[in-house]
Amino acid sequence: MSLPAKRPSRAVISIVKPSIDCGQYFIKRVIGEKVDVYAAVFADGHDVVAAEILYKHESDTQWSNARLNLSVNDDWYGSFVVEKQRFYHYKVRAWVDYALNWQSGLIKKALDGQYVQVELNDGLPLLEETLKLIPKSIDSASYDFLKSTVEYIKASDYLKSLEACTSKELKTILEKYPTRKNSVESPEYKIWVDRPKAGFSAWYEFFPRSASPEKGRHGTFKDCEALLPRIADLGFDVLYFPPIHPIGEINRKGKNNSVTSKPGEPGSPWAIGSRFGGHDAIHPELGTLEDYKNLLAKAKEYGIEIAMDLAFQCAPDHPYVKEHPEWFVIKSDGSIQYAENPPKKYQDIYPFNFECDDWQGLWNELLRVVKYWVEQGVTIFRVDNPHTKPFKFWQWLISEIHKTHSDIIFLSEAFTRPKIMHELAKLGFTQSYTYFCWRNTKAELTEYLTELTTTDQREFFRPNFWPNTPDINPWSLQGGNESLFMIRLFLAATLSSNYGIYGPVYEYGIHEPYPGKEEYLNSEKYEIYHWDWTRETRLTVLIRLINQIRKTYKSFQTTYNLTFCPVNDDHLLAYYKGDIETGEHFLMVVNLDHLNSRQGMVRPPFEKMGIPVGTHLLMQDYITGNTWTWYSEYNYVALHPNVPFHLFKISKA
Amino acid sequence: MSLPAKRPSRAVISIVKPSIDCGQYFIKRVIGEKVDVYAAVFADGHDVVAAEILYKHESDTQWSNARLNLSVNDDWYGSFVVEKQRFYHYKVRAWVDYALNWQSGLIKKALDGQYVQVELNDGLPLLEETLKLIPKSIDSASYDFLKSTVEYIKASDYLKSLEACTSKELKTILEKYPTRKNSVESPEYKIWVDRPKAGFSAWYEFFPRSASPEKGRHGTFKDCEALLPRIADLGFDVLYFPPIHPIGEINRKGKNNSVTSKPGEPGSPWAIGSRFGGHDAIHPELGTLEDYKNLLAKAKEYGIEIAMDLAFQCAPDHPYVKEHPEWFVIKSDGSIQYAENPPKKYQDIYPFNFECDDWQGLWNELLRVVKYWVEQGVTIFRVDNPHTKPFKFWQWLISEIHKTHSDIIFLSEAFTRPKIMHELAKLGFTQSYTYFCWRNTKAELTEYLTELTTTDQREFFRPNFWPNTPDINPWSLQGGNESLFMIRLFLAATLSSNYGIYGPVYEYGIHEPYPGKEEYLNSEKYEIYHWDWTRETRLTVLIRLINQIRKTYKSFQTTYNLTFCPVNDDHLLAYYKGDIETGEHFLMVVNLDHLNSRQGMVRPPFEKMGIPVGTHLLMQDYITGNTWTWYSEYNYVALHPNVPFHLFKISKA
Repeated sequence: MSLPAKRPSRAVISIVKPSIDCGQYFIKRVIGEKVDVYAAVFADGHDVVAAEILYKHESDTQWSNARLNLSVNDDWYGSFVVEKQRFYHYKVRAWVDYALNWQSGLIKKALDGQYVQVELNDGLPLLEETLKLIPKSIDSASYDFLKSTVEYIKASDYLKSLEACTSKELKTILEKYPTRKNSVESPEYKIWVDRPKAGFSAWYEFFPRSASPEKGRHGTFKDCEALLPRIADLGFDVLYFPPIHPIGEINRKGKNNSVTSKPGEPGSPWAIGSRFGGHDAIHPELGTLEDYKNLLAKAKEYGIEIAMDLAFQCAPDHPYVKEHPEWFVIKSDGSIQYAENPPKKYQDIYPFNFECDDWQGLWNELLRVVKYWVEQGVTIFRVDNPHTKPFKFWQWLISEIHKTHSDIIFLSEAFTRPKIMHELAKLGFTQSYTYFCWRNTKAELTEYLTELTTTDQREFFRPNFWPNTPDINPWSLQGGNESLFMIRLFLAATLSSNYGIYGPVYEYGIHEPYPGKEEYLNSEKYEIYHWDWTRETRLTVLIRLINQIRKTYKSFQTTYNLTFCPVNDDHLLAYYKGDIETGEHFLMVVNLDHLNSRQGMVRPPFEKMGIPVGTHLLMQDYITGNTWTWYSEYNYVALHPNVPFHLFKISKA
Repeated sequence: MSLPAKRPSRAVISIVKPSIDCGQYFIKRVIGEKVDVYAAVFADGHDVVAAEILYKHESDTQWSNARLNLSVNDDWYGSFVVEKQRFYHYKVRAWVDYALNWQSGLIKKALDGQYVQVELNDGLPLLEETLKLIPKSIDSASYDFLKSTVEYIKASDYLKSLEACTSKELKTILEKYPTRKNSVESPEYKIWVDRPKAGFSAWYEFFPRSASPEKGRHGTFKDCEALLPRIADLGFDVLYFPPIHPIGEINRKGKNNSVTSKPGEPGSPWAIGSRFGGHDAIHPELGTLEDYKNLLAKAKEYGIEIAMDLAFQCAPDHPYVKEHPEWFVIKSDGSIQYAENPPKKYQDIYPFNFECDDWQGLWNELLRVVKYWVEQGVTIFRVDNPHTKPFKFWQWLISEIHKTHSDIIFLSEAFTRPKIMHELAKLGFTQSYTYFCWRNTKAELTEYLTELTTTDQREFFRPNFWPNTPDINPWSLQGGNESLFMIRLFLAATLSSNYGIYGPVYEYGIHEPYPGKEEYLNSEKYEIYHWDWTRETRLTVLIRLINQIRKTYKSFQTTYNLTFCPVNDDHLLAYYKGDIETGEHFLMVVNLDHLNSRQGMVRPPFEKMGIPVGTHLLMQDYITGNTWTWYSEYNYVALHPNVPFHLFKISKA
């Protein structure tokens, strides 16, 4: 290590956050969101140190800067807001601030009664340097103040120069116009900024083949069109269909996932590809490409985007199998390897071999498929089991799509180990399914939400909470208890700004499990259902109400303004959403015990609201319409399973 | 992001530990220490993944490898031992193990009763690849086994090939000879390996000028020589002197740091430089360079190294001030800036201006000084206030010295904010002073030691515990209570493998403070003391005993084998040192209440010792010589302030 060529900075930036895996991955935001930056900054000795954030949009040529403020023990905090989609860059800059340091020492000596003529003179070159930085035409006040300060010193006017040099005004000027001499910069970090829907969305899932109003007829995209007003009225803005491609006929699965199907059984939509085409085709019984595009357009009118399922796997009769057998694993007997998780076999599915010799051909073809659908107007993809395809594949595919279409949202359907789910999120997935289905108790929910909203995960892993999916009929809902259905819906929709339901099944309380499994009996995955879409349940009404509240109040449009509140019952969960900036304050109290009434004393987070403890609060319950006044720090709540939650809008009484 | 040119690995290494600030800094070890490596490793899908550590000494041309074993949730653990001084490199390598994956699937299918002839054939190319990797001459058993396995498959001998392919033997062979196809590697990290003394040392500090046996005479190096047998007998292996250079005569400080000194007052040794020379000279009253070198040599015979104080600052009459005024801050009136911490002034000290225009000249001169003393035989430097000099300076200086002299130990005397102390340690300081002086209660000690021994700090920050120094007469010892002196010594010497005392002051219980400060009244920093070195106190006896125990048992030669043990009294601190590997087990119990007897029930850490709970234990107290048998999980202890600790050697009864 030879002596550096340039005089090294004395300032050190030892930590910058957020920074995911040493800056290897970008963090994520949506337009208008804040980036809170932390930095550990210090220098040797006792000199005054200054630091700032530098940030810019990829289209900017110049950096903007934002203050970093010293808290304690060399911890600095600051923030900035991202206003445009696509990449931002940020870094931290720090320096020993010679001018501020000189002023700080001068003030201490002056207060000590020392004669400081020499010190005043010492400051002259520092002040003259600062003077050069002030744009006289824009900030004449600062310029004039500093100019006369310099003149007082030059004139050896002790009293006037002492007064000016120790003034607050000078401090403000020196802070505003730092010379940044010998500054040091941190590495650069990146932010990917999405459109707002990436951070706030309500998903409704149904099988388009079950959309027909006539029992026994296969549903079509036209039938789906007719349901759009209903979905819009319920307040959903994403409509997600299982795959709409031709369904394989070879080894087609029957009712309840049986290995063979009877003639006429429709098969699983995830077994993609048949003589009617593959991933870029449409299942003939649903309609034509034109029908699908009409549906996309019609949905748009209702403020609804239709999410496409991206399931990169093939039925044995998928055209790829004949055209590109080299894209699959060929066994020693010449057959193509079907999917398996030994000893289990899935003969209706051929997985791609992403490592095959022609991997580049395969990857490019799959990218072509995604681009094709983007060109048809698809804006959201729900990606099926991304964790069974190489991570590098997704990183490449998503970044390729985002190059030209930064609006596209990818939801990762990976229900697997934490690090794998996180890796997918880091690589570019916009939103992710979560463990919400298996977090039921107060302790579980508190721990999980704390992890999601307060650790590094908040920077890259955007949760999307689903109380059920066609694959998951969770233990907790298998009893069919209506309170539990309401509780789980309420939790999903108020804890997470992104949430979704496998809709009709949830609304109508379908709950019978395949014995011993977290799956539905007679799952819609293998058969066509018929729904009476005109029917409304208490769940339907609740969903409409909650979605309305979510749309009206900003507090529910982010997942990251959550604070849990003390309440002295292990079955009562209380949480606050809101902040001083928006001025919105909501308190939710949920009775997690679906069998018994529960009572307790709740403490609203006065500190978060910026309201003194004990201020009288008006509590308007937007669920029941009742209003209470709370007079104390701890306040009584009682919840019966019949309406097992409060959603309070808080205002000063 | 265009398609990568090479087929990307499906394996992902997302975390490697230890890695300090993204690998920006090296970790530290001493010869013979273990490096425990953690990695987060996974791949897409369900395939079997394998991973290993690669490591090598800077002089090695080839990497060695060490196993990484999967624990749970993609967490992998492994370790290796460093055996030579200077830099090591390490990294992690991971891959999808196609052969192991094939065998694992085969076994599951076979156990399920499936006919697996095709699967056996599928394995043939994998096994043939492995066969090529086995050195037949060295490992003929593996080679022969695999060779015949291949032949069974080729001969379609179903039963024999099935037996061989599903065997444990084959698994062991596949693990031992992985093809590592499509592997991925983490970034490289570095370790600096020191000689053993960096990790285990006992320091004794005294002022050589107070070494004279005759009261009123200035002590000399020759007087110090006479004290070596005593220091060695007490069990210390580092003798540290405050600066031995000529002491400034201009603005010399008097008794109790008074601004002016009376004629004959010796001044502070930290005000370096006078007409007799500067940092490369010796204070004439101590002796000559020859005397100093003789002392170093003599000390070596006693197993003692003499640490030099590196205080990079100048008295006003230091030769540099005349020869190189450009190395200091020149004020606007032409005077040289003395040290200050406004409004406080230190007119006897001129700090260097490490940012002066001739900073390279200054830095090179200071490096020359250190090199000069290294050439005279100095092997250990205690660096005075390194945090008031630029971090980059130390990084450069230490690495320059270590290039040619990796034996040199630097102790950082920075009592300041945590991040600054850590930064200095990261930049290369071998050992660091700590907050030990201000950690007195059970909670404080437990928290601090947990931080030092279980967080990232253990990788780079080697604590050196000092109960007192010439600068610190801690509040806790100002009462002069003998029990507290014993307790603090015992804690320092048994909690930290590196410890030291400002010797005679501690042995003889000097404790009177300068009023209102954590400093000594009539501090030896400003005057010459006379000691009756023949005198021994209870402290002297305790020190000798503890140092003897530390030298005898490996358990006390590392700081990182510490476990706190439950004991139900807030003034009793119980901790274990030892491990299964050495087979040594020590339990310390300390009564932190120096005024009252305390009793409680202690639980030895049976799990750490690898001994079933409830095993009868023989507890030999090496302090009192008493022996007890403990029959239970929790065992009774009672400690009186008179002998306020146990040091138990544990063995099975």
